[in-house]
Amino acid sequence: MSQQRDLPLSYGVLLYPGFEVLDVAGPLNCLNSLTRRLKGVELSLAVIGRPSDADPALPALVTPADKEGGPLGFSFASQQVYNPTHTFHHAPALDVLIIPGGVGALRTEKVAPEIAFLRQVYPSLQFLFTVCNGSGIAASAGVLDGHHATSNKSLWSSITALGPRTHWTAKARWVVSGNIWTTSGVSAGIDGMLAFLGTTYGHLWEKTDIGETLANAIEHTRAADSSDDPFAAIFGAADVPPMQE
Amino acid sequence: MSQQRDLPLSYGVLLYPGFEVLDVAGPLNCLNSLTRRLKGVELSLAVIGRPSDADPALPALVTPADKEGGPLGFSFASQQVYNPTHTFHHAPALDVLIIPGGVGALRTEKVAPEIAFLRQVYPSLQFLFTVCNGSGIAASAGVLDGHHATSNKSLWSSITALGPRTHWTAKARWVVSGNIWTTSGVSAGIDGMLAFLGTTYGHLWEKTDIGETLANAIEHTRAADSSDDPFAAIFGAADVPPMQE
Repeated sequence: MSQQRDLPLSYGVLLYPGFEVLDVAGPLNCLNSLTRRLKGVELSLAVIGRPSDADPALPALVTPADKEGGPLGFSFASQQVYNPTHTFHHAPALDVLIIPGGVGALRTEKVAPEIAFLRQVYPSLQFLFTVCNGSGIAASAGVLDGHHATSNKSLWSSITALGPRTHWTAKARWVVSGNIWTTSGVSAGIDGMLAFLGTTYGHLWEKTDIGETLANAIEHTRAADSSDDPFAAIFGAADVPPMQE
Repeated sequence: MSQQRDLPLSYGVLLYPGFEVLDVAGPLNCLNSLTRRLKGVELSLAVIGRPSDADPALPALVTPADKEGGPLGFSFASQQVYNPTHTFHHAPALDVLIIPGGVGALRTEKVAPEIAFLRQVYPSLQFLFTVCNGSGIAASAGVLDGHHATSNKSLWSSITALGPRTHWTAKARWVVSGNIWTTSGVSAGIDGMLAFLGTTYGHLWEKTDIGETLANAIEHTRAADSSDDPFAAIFGAADVPPMQE
């Protein structure tokens, strides 16, 4: 196969009630900046959500509000309304699936539909990319079994408990394991995506470092080294090996 | 007046075609994190957009796609669909208005409705907060006349030209001038908002530094000093004084 044929072109991002907005916008802003600059390669995006109760052929509107967790922040966050373009059942074939974290993902039973969707589509993905405790959804789906991964540091123990067969690396801004990229909390999704884009599209770029070019364009002081993570120490997160079976 | 009465409680964010998603999600994520932690103070949010052609009582859907600027990135960005909650004409009274930047704001004539809206509401705001070249909209509305301000560094000369009566500060992550906060490009909106929240709500916080607490929660290595800006030098941006009249 040619390099061109292997390029990931079809992206999906999975939104669920209580997602964290920066987990989504960080990576997407990097991709938006890339698509304005990358000549001759057209990327596509599907924003995937749950079916609407009113019409299951259409996706439900989704907000970062924490409906299940109580009233705090509900009225504020519920005003941020996103329109997914596809339901689980109508999503196109994807090369890359991005899964954000968020308070909604803290309650595993509430994201059962997203866990089931990931379990179904993972075998056909070129890459899975999770941000923050989106890795908890991946762990719950079983796709992190045997893999190295990282996640949000302030929620470390509760997330790592969801992946007892995973090698959890604490001091990491992001971790690459096979075709799975996991990043640390929230803003780490930006650094992870910049690294992913460098690895994936860097050979098409006229400049020396696509990640640096995009980081400068969004005026972001990036962590260019995956081990550059001060937050593991701040929150006292330590490596968690797979449980002995 | 009591301190409580002076607290900004009512927020608005202005979305327009071709806004930059991280300019919006960065500050809103800080506010979402705040609203989950701040006890006894309820903030409200209006997401404000243009009236829909089909029904001017309702806001039009809005995307970061650059419809006017050509096809690059259009199909990718157009899948990111936001539902504003209010039109210009139905927006509630606001204490704080956040104006993001984006490729859509590069063409001043295309954001004439937003410029007119800002000119109308500015006198009633407690604070105006702009991100990236959102300051170009503020400059075009005349509200930056006589003020100090900053903006995106890679677009510096074209933005500063919109505000000939403004003191433009190049090496700044953000600038506070009277009741106007302007930040540098894209991700600087996060640092500016963390500083704004520290100044505005810090006295209500049980911890010593609300900005640091929120920065750690979103695993963001913040610029806590407004002069900590490497991007002015990277893009060769220099201070621009007001023109002599």
